Amino acid sequence: MRAVVMRNGALVVDDLPEPVPVSGQVLVKTLACGICGSDLHFLRHGPSMVALSQAGGSSSTLDLSRDVVLGHEFVAEVLDVRADSMTNAVPGDRVVSVPILFGTLPPSLETVRSLGFSNESNGGYAECMALSGPLLLKVPNGLATEHAATTEPFAVGLHAVNKSGVTSADAAIVHGCGPVGLAVISALRLAGVRTIVAADYSTARRRLAETMGATEVVDPAQEAAIDAWARVAGWKGPQIGVTAPLVQFEAIGVPGILDELMRRAPRGGRITVVGVCMEADSIHPMFGINKELQLQFVLGYTPEEFAATLAHLAEGRIDAAPLITGRVPLDGVADAFTALADPDRHAKILVVPNN
Amino acid sequence: MRAVVMRNGALVVDDLPEPVPVSGQVLVKTLACGICGSDLHFLRHGPSMVALSQAGGSSSTLDLSRDVVLGHEFVAEVLDVRADSMTNAVPGDRVVSVPILFGTLPPSLETVRSLGFSNESNGGYAECMALSGPLLLKVPNGLATEHAATTEPFAVGLHAVNKSGVTSADAAIVHGCGPVGLAVISALRLAGVRTIVAADYSTARRRLAETMGATEVVDPAQEAAIDAWARVAGWKGPQIGVTAPLVQFEAIGVPGILDELMRRAPRGGRITVVGVCMEADSIHPMFGINKELQLQFVLGYTPEEFAATLAHLAEGRIDAAPLITGRVPLDGVADAFTALADPDRHAKILVVPNN
Repeated sequence: MRAVVMRNGALVVDDLPEPVPVSGQVLVKTLACGICGSDLHFLRHGPSMVALSQAGGSSSTLDLSRDVVLGHEFVAEVLDVRADSMTNAVPGDRVVSVPILFGTLPPSLETVRSLGFSNESNGGYAECMALSGPLLLKVPNGLATEHAATTEPFAVGLHAVNKSGVTSADAAIVHGCGPVGLAVISALRLAGVRTIVAADYSTARRRLAETMGATEVVDPAQEAAIDAWARVAGWKGPQIGVTAPLVQFEAIGVPGILDELMRRAPRGGRITVVGVCMEADSIHPMFGINKELQLQFVLGYTPEEFAATLAHLAEGRIDAAPLITGRVPLDGVADAFTALADPDRHAKILVVPNN
Repeated sequence: MRAVVMRNGALVVDDLPEPVPVSGQVLVKTLACGICGSDLHFLRHGPSMVALSQAGGSSSTLDLSRDVVLGHEFVAEVLDVRADSMTNAVPGDRVVSVPILFGTLPPSLETVRSLGFSNESNGGYAECMALSGPLLLKVPNGLATEHAATTEPFAVGLHAVNKSGVTSADAAIVHGCGPVGLAVISALRLAGVRTIVAADYSTARRRLAETMGATEVVDPAQEAAIDAWARVAGWKGPQIGVTAPLVQFEAIGVPGILDELMRRAPRGGRITVVGVCMEADSIHPMFGINKELQLQFVLGYTPEEFAATLAHLAEGRIDAAPLITGRVPLDGVADAFTALADPDRHAKILVVPNN
């Protein structure tokens, strides 16, 4: 089968052996697979990401001197089901799946614990994949295939909002309106948050933020998001014992942002860090201490949140259409990685391996 | 009256005018006042502390070119009560008071919003003080005066434990067994936490930690606290969807500690930052993200927590005696600041201004 292979830090199209499903697995044809910001990060910073994960206690054995086939935002069609595939999906069914699981897994799930970031199992930048039968979710009939491919990124937003502790009594600020920020905005809207301030330097991204549900969009070059919130919320400063009714989401992930958010945060402010900063970052703990800030770092989603997101898409509570700004075949992936650097041109590009 | 004055970055004993209580205030004689680690920090790093507070949005107008009389851990005797002092305390009563209040205050409390860190009102390193009548708490008859002076530092520990969200189902690690760490340990014991691992390089501090309620003490040069916890808790690693039953308290406050705690934290780990790091600090957000860590910065206490702590001391649920390792008159304060640098010699030194 054809696949885009990350090899020696570059993306090349190559022929690989088709995966052979083992017990508990299903052979699928990849219908579409989104390119994630973390894929871009991984191509550029793979060695330091692996080193930092291992330094932080991960048991990952990922070896970057060997091939990796990226792609964890996939929708696929079932080709072949074994008697022991442990699923009720049948050939022809469209399916999605949680690509990555955290924590101690039963041995039957070990081989799919990190689809798209593994030497053992290829991700969705390939014509075929071997997926774990018990994790498959059938795509409801009414949902467009391309929209099903966005289940994963929208689940990231739902999880971030759930972990943030935001309630409908709070306002929210979303810093950065890439796919992660946009997914957060859509989840905030679903959570009933009535004031959603979104900040991005890109005009196109700000427009997308409004489409997804932001109630106030700002260009940080013109007005700091925290000032926009104070303006629309009529915030006059803290009262004794009252926590500011605000949760901020850091969805940018470059050094310096976190410290700036802490510097300007109101007393008792809560900051959910969903942007992935790959490098060491400098903060002033004094900002956190003086204002009793809370930083909640988040990653991924639970299987339940993934399934809930698929239902939100199928029922029309989340509209994925505005997010999808391009489609490429396998031999267009390398160029798509470059194109994604322009936030005014693209949000989510889907790889369509079987064209 | 005689007072220890912070002037041009040094401590000098000088004669100052006795404070004149205004409406809502009470004149008191200082009986004892603890020397806090933040006083030591402030003498050394005052300009950067003020600059960082202001950068973080504080409205403090503290001017270090003017005199400051430190001391916020005080117990006092009421000398004079005005008709409009707004208290039922009478001359001769022993009292304590919340020294610092955060947030927007009624005008009557503005002058006592930061006792011990103010140009306008002197703290407890002085023979007399003007305290706010509505904030006074009478010291219960059975409680020793010196022990009442520890209400403030023990309230810091109670607040940190309350904000941490720790439950009796969790274990706790306390990194650093200075007065703040020791206060955290005593509050953890009161909260019913059964496994309390305390870490400090100093033998004397580890002994104090055991006295206050630590169930396991470690010298980090011999064994990392996180390893000691895994050993005593029988921790085998995370299960899917299960948060590690552990809350860590950072009570050291020097650069590098936070990143090391994040690096070694279990998945879902919660870290309460109660140590005050005055400088910029470098962290790897990747550690936080990969393990979905939560950092809760804390400062101070609520008036309710302060009152609860006084009751804990009065009822014998907290024993302050082991914490108090020295007493000095006003002209011994400068030397006491130096002596406190030796953790094997001292924990809490009380200033006794009226000897």
